Amino acid sequence: MIAKHMKELTESGSAIRAMFEEGKKMARERGKDHVFDFSLGNPNTPPPEKIKEAAIAILQEEDPIRLHGYMSNVGYEEVRDQVAQNLNRRFGTALTREHLIMTVGAAGSLNIALKTIIEAGDEVLLLAPFFGEYIHYMQNYQGVPVIVAPDIPNFSLNLTDIESKITAKTKALIINSPNNPTGVIYPPADIERLAQLLRQKEKEYGHAIYLISDEPYREIVFDGAAVPFLPQYYDNTFVCYSYSKSLSLPGERIGYLLIAPTMDAFEEVAAAAAVAIRILGFVNAPSLMQQVIGRCADALSDMTVYKENKEILYRELTDMGYAMVEPQGAFYMFPQSPTADETVFCEAAKEYGILVVPGRTFACPGYFRLAFCVAKQTVQGALPGFKALMERFGH
Amino acid sequence: MIAKHMKELTESGSAIRAMFEEGKKMARERGKDHVFDFSLGNPNTPPPEKIKEAAIAILQEEDPIRLHGYMSNVGYEEVRDQVAQNLNRRFGTALTREHLIMTVGAAGSLNIALKTIIEAGDEVLLLAPFFGEYIHYMQNYQGVPVIVAPDIPNFSLNLTDIESKITAKTKALIINSPNNPTGVIYPPADIERLAQLLRQKEKEYGHAIYLISDEPYREIVFDGAAVPFLPQYYDNTFVCYSYSKSLSLPGERIGYLLIAPTMDAFEEVAAAAAVAIRILGFVNAPSLMQQVIGRCADALSDMTVYKENKEILYRELTDMGYAMVEPQGAFYMFPQSPTADETVFCEAAKEYGILVVPGRTFACPGYFRLAFCVAKQTVQGALPGFKALMERFGH
Repeated sequence: MIAKHMKELTESGSAIRAMFEEGKKMARERGKDHVFDFSLGNPNTPPPEKIKEAAIAILQEEDPIRLHGYMSNVGYEEVRDQVAQNLNRRFGTALTREHLIMTVGAAGSLNIALKTIIEAGDEVLLLAPFFGEYIHYMQNYQGVPVIVAPDIPNFSLNLTDIESKITAKTKALIINSPNNPTGVIYPPADIERLAQLLRQKEKEYGHAIYLISDEPYREIVFDGAAVPFLPQYYDNTFVCYSYSKSLSLPGERIGYLLIAPTMDAFEEVAAAAAVAIRILGFVNAPSLMQQVIGRCADALSDMTVYKENKEILYRELTDMGYAMVEPQGAFYMFPQSPTADETVFCEAAKEYGILVVPGRTFACPGYFRLAFCVAKQTVQGALPGFKALMERFGH
Repeated sequence: MIAKHMKELTESGSAIRAMFEEGKKMARERGKDHVFDFSLGNPNTPPPEKIKEAAIAILQEEDPIRLHGYMSNVGYEEVRDQVAQNLNRRFGTALTREHLIMTVGAAGSLNIALKTIIEAGDEVLLLAPFFGEYIHYMQNYQGVPVIVAPDIPNFSLNLTDIESKITAKTKALIINSPNNPTGVIYPPADIERLAQLLRQKEKEYGHAIYLISDEPYREIVFDGAAVPFLPQYYDNTFVCYSYSKSLSLPGERIGYLLIAPTMDAFEEVAAAAAVAIRILGFVNAPSLMQQVIGRCADALSDMTVYKENKEILYRELTDMGYAMVEPQGAFYMFPQSPTADETVFCEAAKEYGILVVPGRTFACPGYFRLAFCVAKQTVQGALPGFKALMERFGH
């Protein structure tokens, strides 16, 4: 009696849940130290100490009725001011609270942006490989996902295929840089070319094409790589941000939606987004955690462990013969499977206690994703298994 | 360029926002003490001291990576155990964690239930007067709201009209007791008759008809009134609960969805709801606040102020000639407007610094809603204005 569309989702969802269950079962059978779980993007570096101090101070100092009460659906004004100032310092922008809505994480932010702009039948370009949930978010609003082919083997922006997939029905394009699952950061020159293409298509079709930038990994970058700030390249930009990774707070569901000040009909879009957060049932971002962000907008978790893991894994796996792009950011790498069907590889990896995610989950078969937000001993412990797998499957 | 369906919503949304803005403007012009704002359901009694103590203890004691990290989408197992035990103690049920999903408030809970069961074109019965957001929640899933006429003047369950509105397309009925905006609690005998009717219609049409119980006001009851626990009356019941009112935490967005153990295809429904929380973009209920609930599941805010306000307002307003049902619970009352068009009355009330909400917002014109979760001086200060309004409009 559940809705038909949920039936399919529940069955496919169970495949992933089965993997987690298998991981737990493996841990019981082999012992925790013999299971190397690279399946989940759950930060393993703690939040900055400042988060705890701020939360306790707020609980002790603030009037509890105001602290835990309703505020404007778009969030506390002073919190949005702090976030705007942080962005202005870093990007030389002139953002204000008016451009920001505090949200229930980036997933909340993406859903609000989509609810605001998508009508049934509107097409949204997704750039493979991409976070599989985008498809479901799209379907929440009867949007039609249009998948842009991956640019193999570099996983840079596939501008040729993007151009060929834009139609009169294209309403938006979702971009994710640093990218999950590849770790690629799209450089300024490519972003500039994308912006030019979108502007040209907007003109051609006579309506806005929105760029939705999902960027929870903005702060996780290696070797000083810079992540272009998209509102500086393209007018009709939404930025969907989460503090899940930069402050290691994924369970708290706190982030923001930034609506570029240059957006067409800005006032109307901002007003609609403020309604969307309410009617989707979020109502507002959690109040205590909003206030914590207000005090900690400039803080960052220590990302050293991600850099160290990335270096070990990239060096060792490429030495073994795995082909991949070196991640520039995020905490994922996306090697090519040594055997064409990566689900065979991922199944076999379990024999060595290794859990990795098949590329088809990201609309890119033939590859697999490793989330290296894990303890260093997990990385070290998995290396013999990866070596054995390459010997078994490699040519 | 926003979606068409958002255009209308943004415009109607603005009417309510305009009221709040007017309230602020009135406060500036007349002074705060001369504005009597009964428009918002924002608790004015503080959370129990235990909430603050638990939050600080958790922040100090728990591993921050686990505390703020991802957990299962449906919530921490031990928190769901605590909530189940609290319900079992109070209602003699045998609920377990398997029947509960921690949610982003009752609004989140309602959206998850609807996403799980509603297909485009399915009809959902809404019992006027009702919280206006239900219509938008329904439309999120292309459900069709079917409005059951109010039972005037008692605002009890209108079983005759419910029966006449059930069709082969009816998928669910949303019930809200203690009721917003009337304060009415539906007694066990009426609930039993409703359950019988729904069972008969399920049999007649050969499919489940779900009872969705939105009950954020369960704990706010006057003079020992009891609120029937619906899973004990009807198998296919969802309970959508929020701690917003019972613990005065509306800004924190914390609640639960209870799926009755007796529900048809329970396993399938529970699995689909666990997927729905993820793909709607909630992902999970905020982690710190979940853990606070785990330690404070038995706590309650001091509701004395609501009872006092209710008694003063009910006595004084009925003395003046206002006709209404005496609220048995929640913190709302719903008097008849002394003039047929209640929007005229609500506009005129502003001249006396009084803000109340027109009944048509709840699909029940001719009445107006007072939210009495306000300071006692607001109640006292508004009485001369209400008296003047009755003299002006009363016959």
